[in-house]
Amino acid sequence: MEFWGVEVKAGMPLKVRPQVDHLIHLSQATIEAENGATGLLYVTIDWKKHVIGTLSQGRIPQISFDLVFEQEFELSHSLEKGSVHFIGYKSPNIDQEEDPSDSEEEEEEDEVE
Amino acid sequence: MEFWGVEVKAGMPLKVRPQVDHLIHLSQATIEAENGATGLLYVTIDWKKHVIGTLSQGRIPQISFDLVFEQEFELSHSLEKGSVHFIGYKSPNIDQEEDPSDSEEEEEEDEVE
Amino acid sequence: MEFWGVEVKAGMPLKVRPQVDHLIHLSQATIEAENGATGLLYVTIDWKKHVIGTLSQGRIPQISFDLVFEQEFELSHSLEKGSVHFIGYKSPNIDQEEDPSDSEEEEEEDEVE
Amino acid sequence: MEFWGVEVKAGMPLKVRPQVDHLIHLSQATIEAENGATGLLYVTIDWKKHVIGTLSQGRIPQISFDLVFEQEFELSHSLEKGSVHFIGYKSPNIDQEEDPSDSEEEEEEDEVE
Amino acid sequence: MEFWGVEVKAGMPLKVRPQVDHLIHLSQATIEAENGATGLLYVTIDWKKHVIGTLSQGRIPQISFDLVFEQEFELSHSLEKGSVHFIGYKSPNIDQEEDPSDSEEEEEEDEVE
Repeated sequence: MEFWGVEVKAGMPLKVRPQVDHLIHLSQATIEAENGATGLLYVTIDWKKHVIGTLSQGRIPQISFDLVFEQEFELSHSLEKGSVHFIGYKSPNIDQEEDPSDSEEEEEEDEVE
Repeated sequence: MEFWGVEVKAGMPLKVRPQVDHLIHLSQATIEAENGATGLLYVTIDWKKHVIGTLSQGRIPQISFDLVFEQEFELSHSLEKGSVHFIGYKSPNIDQEEDPSDSEEEEEEDEVE
Repeated sequence: MEFWGVEVKAGMPLKVRPQVDHLIHLSQATIEAENGATGLLYVTIDWKKHVIGTLSQGRIPQISFDLVFEQEFELSHSLEKGSVHFIGYKSPNIDQEEDPSDSEEEEEEDEVE
Repeated sequence: MEFWGVEVKAGMPLKVRPQVDHLIHLSQATIEAENGATGLLYVTIDWKKHVIGTLSQGRIPQISFDLVFEQEFELSHSLEKGSVHFIGYKSPNIDQEEDPSDSEEEEEEDEVE
Repeated sequence: MEFWGVEVKAGMPLKVRPQVDHLIHLSQATIEAENGATGLLYVTIDWKKHVIGTLSQGRIPQISFDLVFEQEFELSHSLEKGSVHFIGYKSPNIDQEEDPSDSEEEEEEDEVE
């Protein structure tokens, strides 16, 4: 496990791709903008854009998350100026490592044995 | 493990069914409504409707949860307009996978061996 | 693991008994009362009553917890009217299941077998 | 795992000693004092006193923690009147139990094998 | 696992190096400064400085984190006076211990043995 962090600037969505067999745990987002600026945060995954929170400089400067990503995802926000800092940690994908000889059991469409 | 998220619109309760042998971890809810709008959030499971939180646009825009679902559940809220975004992640149901040869030990009424 | 939730009405303490070999994880409490109403929340366990938080309708509508119960406990609160909704999830007691052949090592008063 | 909780009264630091081979997880602190009273919370461990948070009756009535103790520690606070309720849970020390035959691998100065 | 905590004084960034085969979990930061003082918190790792939160004496006195460090990192903040107390816990690096005979599978640039 190791620290992971990215800065997402206004108007510049950022794609993040976890390493093979690794997860990214998204633990927190912090706003860095002008006082009073308020923005929605988004995760886009599988072509679907999800609202994951609202930050407001001065009043709600950070949010805790408990989110996990195994595939590529995109982080963005609605601020016109400033940045949102997303932090968390990377870890090996333990689901897969616990039983490497039988990794199919996590496949969704494989039910024959 | 992978990101999971749904948008629940006003007046449109949403049923969610976890995949077989998978769990849905509900980590957070975010309101997207008119400023000042306040709503209760509900989970309905086994025909019982539970209050799981209150959101208020502008003041309490999100809540963290630590909830886990293995069976079908329904998400809803009391807002008249707007949406609540529920996010979290899906994972294999490790309770069952850790000892697949002896899955009865999780059954509630089976104590003979 | 599965969702767990109870409503505790004013003046009606509620006893909760986890299933044998199961834990109840208490994740959150939400107030449902008149605006401004404020109450302390209590857990009573082994004849001892513990303050576990304060909720206030409109200002502090919910609290996150990270608590685990293996024995019977009682939930109550000091509100004169209204309810507190306690939610979380049930899980098998993994401490005991990880090494079923040697479960005594967790017993505090050594049992002979 | 089981609930754990203590009340620390003003001016009365409290020593807590986890059971042998057990951990105490400190999950939360709740203030119970006169409205407006504000206090710092402390943990003293290995003769070092750490600030672990600030509570303020009416405004910030509770804090969540994610702390773990294996050795004796002391809880205290700076309130002149009132109490702070510390809650969490006890669990077996899994680090040690996972491989009881080879417990040296957790020793810090043992690298010969 | 054991408690871990450091005080980072204004103008004095602090390097922290986890023990070999151990992780530091950063769980929380608490401000201790003059009323109204507001500061950004930073982690510097691999020569990159990340914003990890904002604290404000009196209004936002603490933040919860869920961060994990395996390598050396540096904590700092932008307060001109006062301190930030960072707390959490140390634990063995379980990723590595679960399968000590095959630790290469976590290495990113495959090492020959």
